Amino acid sequence: FWDYGPLGVELKNNIKKEWWKYMVLAREDVVGIDAAIIMNPTVWVKSGHVAAFTDPLIECEVCHKRFRPDKIGLKPKIQNNKIIAYFYPSEMDCPSGGHKLQVVIKQVKEIDSEKLVEPSNFNLLVTAQLGVVEKQDVYLRGEITQGVFVNFRNVVDTTRIKIPFGIAQIGKAFRNEITPGNFSFRSREFEQMELEYFIEPDDKTGEDVFSYWKEQRLKWYLTLGLKRENLRYRDHEPEERAHYARFATDIEYRAPFGWSEFEGIHHRGDWDLSRHNLKYRDEISAREFTPWVIETSGGVDRSFLFFLVDAYHEENKRIVLRLNPKLAPFKIAVFPLLANKEQLVKKAREIYLKLKKKFYCVWDDRGNIGKRYLSQDEIGTPWCITVDFTSLDDETVTVRDRDTTKQERIKIAKLDEYFENKLLALS
Amino acid sequence: FWDYGPLGVELKNNIKKEWWKYMVLAREDVVGIDAAIIMNPTVWVKSGHVAAFTDPLIECEVCHKRFRPDKIGLKPKIQNNKIIAYFYPSEMDCPSGGHKLQVVIKQVKEIDSEKLVEPSNFNLLVTAQLGVVEKQDVYLRGEITQGVFVNFRNVVDTTRIKIPFGIAQIGKAFRNEITPGNFSFRSREFEQMELEYFIEPDDKTGEDVFSYWKEQRLKWYLTLGLKRENLRYRDHEPEERAHYARFATDIEYRAPFGWSEFEGIHHRGDWDLSRHNLKYRDEISAREFTPWVIETSGGVDRSFLFFLVDAYHEENKRIVLRLNPKLAPFKIAVFPLLANKEQLVKKAREIYLKLKKKFYCVWDDRGNIGKRYLSQDEIGTPWCITVDFTSLDDETVTVRDRDTTKQERIKIAKLDEYFENKLLALS
Repeated sequence: FWDYGPLGVELKNNIKKEWWKYMVLAREDVVGIDAAIIMNPTVWVKSGHVAAFTDPLIECEVCHKRFRPDKIGLKPKIQNNKIIAYFYPSEMDCPSGGHKLQVVIKQVKEIDSEKLVEPSNFNLLVTAQLGVVEKQDVYLRGEITQGVFVNFRNVVDTTRIKIPFGIAQIGKAFRNEITPGNFSFRSREFEQMELEYFIEPDDKTGEDVFSYWKEQRLKWYLTLGLKRENLRYRDHEPEERAHYARFATDIEYRAPFGWSEFEGIHHRGDWDLSRHNLKYRDEISAREFTPWVIETSGGVDRSFLFFLVDAYHEENKRIVLRLNPKLAPFKIAVFPLLANKEQLVKKAREIYLKLKKKFYCVWDDRGNIGKRYLSQDEIGTPWCITVDFTSLDDETVTVRDRDTTKQERIKIAKLDEYFENKLLALS
Repeated sequence: FWDYGPLGVELKNNIKKEWWKYMVLAREDVVGIDAAIIMNPTVWVKSGHVAAFTDPLIECEVCHKRFRPDKIGLKPKIQNNKIIAYFYPSEMDCPSGGHKLQVVIKQVKEIDSEKLVEPSNFNLLVTAQLGVVEKQDVYLRGEITQGVFVNFRNVVDTTRIKIPFGIAQIGKAFRNEITPGNFSFRSREFEQMELEYFIEPDDKTGEDVFSYWKEQRLKWYLTLGLKRENLRYRDHEPEERAHYARFATDIEYRAPFGWSEFEGIHHRGDWDLSRHNLKYRDEISAREFTPWVIETSGGVDRSFLFFLVDAYHEENKRIVLRLNPKLAPFKIAVFPLLANKEQLVKKAREIYLKLKKKFYCVWDDRGNIGKRYLSQDEIGTPWCITVDFTSLDDETVTVRDRDTTKQERIKIAKLDEYFENKLLALS
């Protein structure tokens, strides 16, 4: 479970804002919704989560710690495109340390005289209790997706949107993860940003739309500044795809802990809408059908982590966070050259208070200018304005660029326009 | 539990955005955070919620429905500024209908030969289970406030902020409410927007800061367009204040179901930081003390409901939602006068696609212009642009105002500036 601090919450909000702009506001074929975290428990029965939202789990017989077999390096044994067991080495250290791993072995099948271990299934849904007269078990949503499906009919009936169209959502989900870890990469409470895009059930359309969204999602990360060499597509192997997925691709990021799933693009066919008995009626042809769904499913906290990692640079004399200015918590820092010169401070305050109306700005008058620059570099502030003695004569200031460290003199009256153009140029 | 649809999510996001702008981004003495919904359960023990986050509850002995005595009209019996029981009338219908209310009566005291009923205490915290080896009970946060208090030390240590300063947060909370209802006014899952403002422990400062935030919060609602006559302050009586509250005032809204709490402004003294053993050290005087806290606690869903109710007007020939343009889901609708004239459609599309980059716009080319205006009035779109035959000659369009229904002719090249100025004028 992670709390975000004063700069973290700004970066996180900016990521969500940019996603919503790109996926909803800039488009004509996508609308948003915001469904509740606690839904009618029947939804999770119908969706199949109560029966099958599970991870494989093995338990060490010595320390009783539990692990996902794939996460500790056991290789899967596949039959009919399904994982039926994991190969178990004759000797292996328990990841909790200090002793050999010992698990209950079921000899599923003798293969080249190797041992196989059959994991148990551990349901990831988090339960909670509600009610005044009698407490009832409910689930915290394990994915935000189901909120979109159960609202499909409402959206079709109350908007003018027609297939093909998408419903987007950002919100929290909860999973009883067996192995949370890697900073905010896998946690039990997390925020998702997802699109469900509904199309006609047609093979060619399905493939085209799937490719389109694969490209769009990669483009979004690239536009916001992630380095291309740290991103890759990885198509799922048949055995790792959910049973309903026709195609599935991950966008992966080269994290310090290895290539890691960033976002999933899934062709879910008619699996979900069928589970909830939902159909779509084409107004012109009067044809009724169950739409297919292409899903793009990203994580806010994962994006946060990877934007941060990607932006972090240690240079000769400074640490610099090269965040895209749209994501940076502060856009502009304003300094008077000297804190004890009243005229400089007064002029700098005027500029600061004016810019603050449009851009999130920070004020700093401590120590020397060099140190102030370095402290803004570390938190990713793209531009620093310094008011010096020349400013008092000619109504200009220096604007220093975080990435190049170059300085320009800009007319005070033009600052607003200058920064607006800088930010627009990034679109 | 409420889901928000395509227009609802935009209105809700705009409310949150305006709150954050006003309470965090525009200020120098407030920073934001975003804490997790599931916190270490010890927090809720320390904070007193496990022992005392309760509502009084009485149960009908006939139907076993449960009620809050104050919500069904029972008057409290007060002793030493505390409610010790409720007066119980000799005859009263059960709110569930069809029979007389019968409850277990404890004769606390005979007063003017009236009967008194002593309610039981019902804890509102929602429990959930986490864990892989053994499930552990945790709480879904019953208020977002505690996330701020437990992060107090982190914020002080990692920012340059000094007392007096505030920490703001927006996020979901959960309560096992006994009587949810009145549309989205009281629900079991809801979103709060809160400020905790930390000050020196000083009576005069406390009173001044409390008054300041009372004014600020009312001003925010007024600036966003709520009618003054639908808002009022209500100071809490001593017996209804939480035991830690030195002063408490509600801002109330005249809802269709009566005057209702909208936002609470509370002087919480040092209650909260003391519970978590947190202190503040003044760098200059080296004095260490437990700050006092002034809290402003508003509800996103309540604000949503009241902004909607306040904006709703039925007029002679139309229904119009007079939302402040900053809150309105769509800012601008763009129409070609006739959908079958290619040149009109082409020109209108150009304008639409250009404006869409800055403002959330909607396109409509159905039916006649009059009907399109009415449909935008109903969802609160402040401005409608129509491209007509004159537009093709002189590069102007009509801009129609939702509230006055008056139309102006504006140069196409000036539209961007026109709407920016309109929105700026609202600040």
